[in-house]
Amino acid sequence: MIVRPRLHWFRLLFVWRGSVLPQIVGRLVVIFIVSVVSVALSGWWLQHFPQSALSIPPFTLMGIALAIFLGFRNSVSYERFWEARKQWGSLLIVARNLINKLGVCQPESSVAGLREQAARRVTAFAYALKHQLRGTDPSDDLRLRLSSECLATIDGKLFPAQIILQSISEQVGMLRHDGRLSEMAWLALARDIDRLGEVAGASERIASTPIPYTYRVLMNRTVVIYCLLLPIGLTTTLGWLTPLIATFVAYSFLALETVGEQLEDPFGIEANDLALDALCHTIESAACELAGVAPLGQAPRVEDFVLT
Amino acid sequence: MIVRPRLHWFRLLFVWRGSVLPQIVGRLVVIFIVSVVSVALSGWWLQHFPQSALSIPPFTLMGIALAIFLGFRNSVSYERFWEARKQWGSLLIVARNLINKLGVCQPESSVAGLREQAARRVTAFAYALKHQLRGTDPSDDLRLRLSSECLATIDGKLFPAQIILQSISEQVGMLRHDGRLSEMAWLALARDIDRLGEVAGASERIASTPIPYTYRVLMNRTVVIYCLLLPIGLTTTLGWLTPLIATFVAYSFLALETVGEQLEDPFGIEANDLALDALCHTIESAACELAGVAPLGQAPRVEDFVLT
Amino acid sequence: MIVRPRLHWFRLLFVWRGSVLPQIVGRLVVIFIVSVVSVALSGWWLQHFPQSALSIPPFTLMGIALAIFLGFRNSVSYERFWEARKQWGSLLIVARNLINKLGVCQPESSVAGLREQAARRVTAFAYALKHQLRGTDPSDDLRLRLSSECLATIDGKLFPAQIILQSISEQVGMLRHDGRLSEMAWLALARDIDRLGEVAGASERIASTPIPYTYRVLMNRTVVIYCLLLPIGLTTTLGWLTPLIATFVAYSFLALETVGEQLEDPFGIEANDLALDALCHTIESAACELAGVAPLGQAPRVEDFVLT
Amino acid sequence: MIVRPRLHWFRLLFVWRGSVLPQIVGRLVVIFIVSVVSVALSGWWLQHFPQSALSIPPFTLMGIALAIFLGFRNSVSYERFWEARKQWGSLLIVARNLINKLGVCQPESSVAGLREQAARRVTAFAYALKHQLRGTDPSDDLRLRLSSECLATIDGKLFPAQIILQSISEQVGMLRHDGRLSEMAWLALARDIDRLGEVAGASERIASTPIPYTYRVLMNRTVVIYCLLLPIGLTTTLGWLTPLIATFVAYSFLALETVGEQLEDPFGIEANDLALDALCHTIESAACELAGVAPLGQAPRVEDFVLT
Amino acid sequence: MIVRPRLHWFRLLFVWRGSVLPQIVGRLVVIFIVSVVSVALSGWWLQHFPQSALSIPPFTLMGIALAIFLGFRNSVSYERFWEARKQWGSLLIVARNLINKLGVCQPESSVAGLREQAARRVTAFAYALKHQLRGTDPSDDLRLRLSSECLATIDGKLFPAQIILQSISEQVGMLRHDGRLSEMAWLALARDIDRLGEVAGASERIASTPIPYTYRVLMNRTVVIYCLLLPIGLTTTLGWLTPLIATFVAYSFLALETVGEQLEDPFGIEANDLALDALCHTIESAACELAGVAPLGQAPRVEDFVLT
Repeated sequence: MIVRPRLHWFRLLFVWRGSVLPQIVGRLVVIFIVSVVSVALSGWWLQHFPQSALSIPPFTLMGIALAIFLGFRNSVSYERFWEARKQWGSLLIVARNLINKLGVCQPESSVAGLREQAARRVTAFAYALKHQLRGTDPSDDLRLRLSSECLATIDGKLFPAQIILQSISEQVGMLRHDGRLSEMAWLALARDIDRLGEVAGASERIASTPIPYTYRVLMNRTVVIYCLLLPIGLTTTLGWLTPLIATFVAYSFLALETVGEQLEDPFGIEANDLALDALCHTIESAACELAGVAPLGQAPRVEDFVLT
Repeated sequence: MIVRPRLHWFRLLFVWRGSVLPQIVGRLVVIFIVSVVSVALSGWWLQHFPQSALSIPPFTLMGIALAIFLGFRNSVSYERFWEARKQWGSLLIVARNLINKLGVCQPESSVAGLREQAARRVTAFAYALKHQLRGTDPSDDLRLRLSSECLATIDGKLFPAQIILQSISEQVGMLRHDGRLSEMAWLALARDIDRLGEVAGASERIASTPIPYTYRVLMNRTVVIYCLLLPIGLTTTLGWLTPLIATFVAYSFLALETVGEQLEDPFGIEANDLALDALCHTIESAACELAGVAPLGQAPRVEDFVLT
Repeated sequence: MIVRPRLHWFRLLFVWRGSVLPQIVGRLVVIFIVSVVSVALSGWWLQHFPQSALSIPPFTLMGIALAIFLGFRNSVSYERFWEARKQWGSLLIVARNLINKLGVCQPESSVAGLREQAARRVTAFAYALKHQLRGTDPSDDLRLRLSSECLATIDGKLFPAQIILQSISEQVGMLRHDGRLSEMAWLALARDIDRLGEVAGASERIASTPIPYTYRVLMNRTVVIYCLLLPIGLTTTLGWLTPLIATFVAYSFLALETVGEQLEDPFGIEANDLALDALCHTIESAACELAGVAPLGQAPRVEDFVLT
Repeated sequence: MIVRPRLHWFRLLFVWRGSVLPQIVGRLVVIFIVSVVSVALSGWWLQHFPQSALSIPPFTLMGIALAIFLGFRNSVSYERFWEARKQWGSLLIVARNLINKLGVCQPESSVAGLREQAARRVTAFAYALKHQLRGTDPSDDLRLRLSSECLATIDGKLFPAQIILQSISEQVGMLRHDGRLSEMAWLALARDIDRLGEVAGASERIASTPIPYTYRVLMNRTVVIYCLLLPIGLTTTLGWLTPLIATFVAYSFLALETVGEQLEDPFGIEANDLALDALCHTIESAACELAGVAPLGQAPRVEDFVLT
Repeated sequence: MIVRPRLHWFRLLFVWRGSVLPQIVGRLVVIFIVSVVSVALSGWWLQHFPQSALSIPPFTLMGIALAIFLGFRNSVSYERFWEARKQWGSLLIVARNLINKLGVCQPESSVAGLREQAARRVTAFAYALKHQLRGTDPSDDLRLRLSSECLATIDGKLFPAQIILQSISEQVGMLRHDGRLSEMAWLALARDIDRLGEVAGASERIASTPIPYTYRVLMNRTVVIYCLLLPIGLTTTLGWLTPLIATFVAYSFLALETVGEQLEDPFGIEANDLALDALCHTIESAACELAGVAPLGQAPRVEDFVLT
């Protein structure tokens, strides 16, 4: 996630970090060169093929169609991003609710200990899920928060977050078995644990099922070919203004396509992806505050305006 | 939130407060000046560069694409605004339901006292959340409604609203422990408390995760550059009508972009943001009416047609 | 709600009631006059300012942008209308379910009486909510359905519907206290009562939070200015056909803006608003049929094709 | 619902049944005639009113606006259709779940009988709802599946489906009263019965609240007037190609408007409406298969590619 | 589902597998030929019918309208695809939650056996559903995972997945009957089983109710006729560039229509459909990991970049 103070509209025009310019600058240079060549050759072309000239109208037609498709694509990508954020928001909500509800356990003196244990495990669940979604190694973050027995059960599993969830579930089941938790309270807590399972499942769904590949092929093809033909079409009307306008239009379309592509997989580590590190830390802070203990991890730093 | 009586369409044309004109008037003046300069120089330019003139067609193409993107942006911003409103609507609903359900507590003579206490705490929860979302100091509003012990537990916490929620949860847990509340009734009340936690979590989510920064950079850049080029493109066709039309079109686009930006963070204090002060007061009024006590705060006044 | 038999497409062209023509006919006349004046003066203008003429292309650009914004506005308004309808649909569903479930009360002989009482109170709840949303006086409708004690508790309250809901809740609570209702059955009924509270809260939310004011100012301004400039732009090309075409286009845009404005507040009494009177009557009919008693109110009549 | 094997794109061009051509062919003929007359008279007109000619640009403007509105209309209609389908899908799901859960009744030997009875009644509920939504007479379908006592209670009621639901509810209540069903199992079954009530309520909502009438008037007016003016506008440019192109464009717009109108009321018996007969039969088959008995009704036949 | 490593934009231009080119190449060739013929004959035509020429403006109008409708169609198709994916994601989530919750069964020593049995049956449910949705024979996959008694009950049934679900339900019911599962735990598990029923019902709904047939007829007709007329319209302006541009535009429209058609039925076996084989395997892996047993099936291989 890009984190910046709100800028004046004028300064926003010249922002480099936080825009997607770095990713598309290569293509823009190609288009600029095509524009210059096209204007330079246009006199010669019109002399030899006076009947075969590209003009603006076909580009209006295609450009608007393209805008509609890019709009569709960005809607879909943004919805994926926002659904992912909602699920992680639920993780925070459920973590708090679960720790809160442990207050009904008997005897009252044991509540603080149970809450601490739950806070550690729920945080470990969040970290394990983060690492699973990003394909990174969870061992450092888990070692800090879980007992060595618990760590042993996780070792080599495909879905470590699920095993942690199972251990929370077993702990709650034992409290009920020992009569320290009523049947009703168990039901309420079991529902919270199910909700954590839903968060994990939904995150895995978003991460494992991208937008159908054909859309990406189609978008890329249409946008690139369109942007390469555009300078040729503008030449007749705009003359030497062509490179300027063509690059500007291409910038709009390519940038939108690129943001759409970044948001499509919100669990990645690109600049516009979700700040899972920061979210994990917030979950730990909130869970630990309710449990009355100190968080074990540290808040990630903002580097170059990007929070990971 | 802007509060105005419904105006006749003709008077609506000249409304100053409630429109976003104040925020964009600077940019409109720049565009007006560019238009005048463009018309004044157009004769000279056409004489020297007869082949390089901006005309309307490229602007049709870009303008419609821009409109589609602005439409997408406004949809997303409005959905955030409306989701935020729904969550605060839920806060009101749950507050009422919770106070209502306390009627099953035993002995019946204690119900009134329990309801009053719940009304105070739920209201304090709403105020604490409001202050957290706006980054303001909650102490005045909380001191009015919470006991000094309760205030002490909140002091210096990151998420005071959660601590208040925990205190409600503990009170309900104690009622059950004392046998004054059945297991079932506890379950129903615990669900209400969970819902309040969801409202807080969802509000935090909206406040902490803006629309990806790149969209804002992209929108601002595209709209501003488009509006600055537009008068040049209109000059050839419209002559001295250019400043009028260019400023009108720029007004539409810039105003839409600005409303979208205001709605994106619905918990702010800009004119179009949610009236959290008024909502907190409504929650207190409703909760206190059901509990049969008088509200402690006062309704916020509408200043300059804006309700905060 | 407008209620008409399905008409043949040809007769639909000449419908007066049910269209929004009456509300916008004033503006259409203004636009017609502007058209005529514009055509009459066009010869003179072109002679004196041959370089400064409005033509169609800028209107294509603005018109399509306008259509996109109107589309957005109408989507949002329709969603508000439909959400409101859904909430009132839930009211009907929950009323039935609640009366249905009372069948588990003991002794069986008391079920009929309990059902009748519940049917009366739920209907009173619906009427109280309707009057609150429309800002009208509920006393006639309530006096018919509630006991005088119950009426006394409502007197002078801000949210009478909530007090009625509280009385239903207390009745159910007492049944449970007396052992005539099991804990489980109480839980199921309490959930229904919560749902009624949600319907009320959601309706209040829609009624109290209109679409941000700035959108209305912006829409009105853009549509009106556009429609006033349009005839001038069409003159050069269409000549004396201008008044016809300009008025037709203005009709489409103004009518859409007006429907959007009507649907925005679905609880009003304009022709396209929800038929709350009829809905209240349906709720009473359905509730009374299940309770085996006769409804007390009468079905509202359709006047001038409008059902209120 | 139209049921056809997937056709090759070329054969799809000449499909008559399943398209809405039959409904709009009248209007298309009118437009064709207007085109021919318009081309025939165009020479004479241009000679006498050389300054007042309709050309294509105003139609581009209006046509795109119209497309946006038709897009909005079709989205709304399709959402209604799909929500209706979802509700009936829920009916099937809940019917199965309910029958499934009856397996916990005591003594085990009675389960088969209870399941059969439930399967019959749930199917009768589906048929009663179907007939209510379509305004047809349910007696044949109900007589086949309900006992004569049950039939007597339904006689003359406004909402027969609700009475059937009440009888299911009473049966389940009695099982609990007799101790053959635990409290918990009753709660789970009561929730299923509530869900059936929701399906009925939601279906009634969709059937009783069409899209606001003004939209229909507006759509019809705009589409028809547009299509009638279009040939005049195309004449100057296209000459004798006008009738072909104008009819093709009119076909697209009128067909879309007509599909939108059909889907708006998904419970009707037009070709594109929901196949309620087939759905009822599927519900019966599924319910009876789980109950281990044979279905009483027969699958509806596909007539002329349409399944009702 | 198409599975490919992320390619550079330039290489993406030349991807053959994963695009829908193979399906539409026939139509593109027809359009290319029409273009060439149209350019070749254009001189002759303009000489004989100088007044009847197709030019670009009518195509702008129709093309944008078409883009809007295609956008609508793709939104609807994608929503169906995504809803299907969500349902199957729920299947995974519920399978895990169910196995997890079995941990509360008594005596503890029996938990492992119960979990294994549940894992096998839930996986069999997923496979049975997959085969039902695709119309293929489930016997191989079921024989591997179910006991022969269980297989016997499924034989010849219309909805085998439901019978497997019933067997899970009966197993859980027996545990409760034997007192090895508390009432509350039974309620929580029964809810999970209901959720599995919902997944099956929703999948059947999507599979059995395609987008209304008329939309498909209309889309195909409009896209094909439009693409066939387009080269004729472009000829006058573009000359020998026509075949290039016309084929490119036709590619965009036809490809989008084809992807929309593929996604509409997400349970098929086309390249862009859901990878149900892989999903079933993931469900088995996850369920077996939690149950501590080895999965019985093997992961499907990616063939030609397509995962089925």
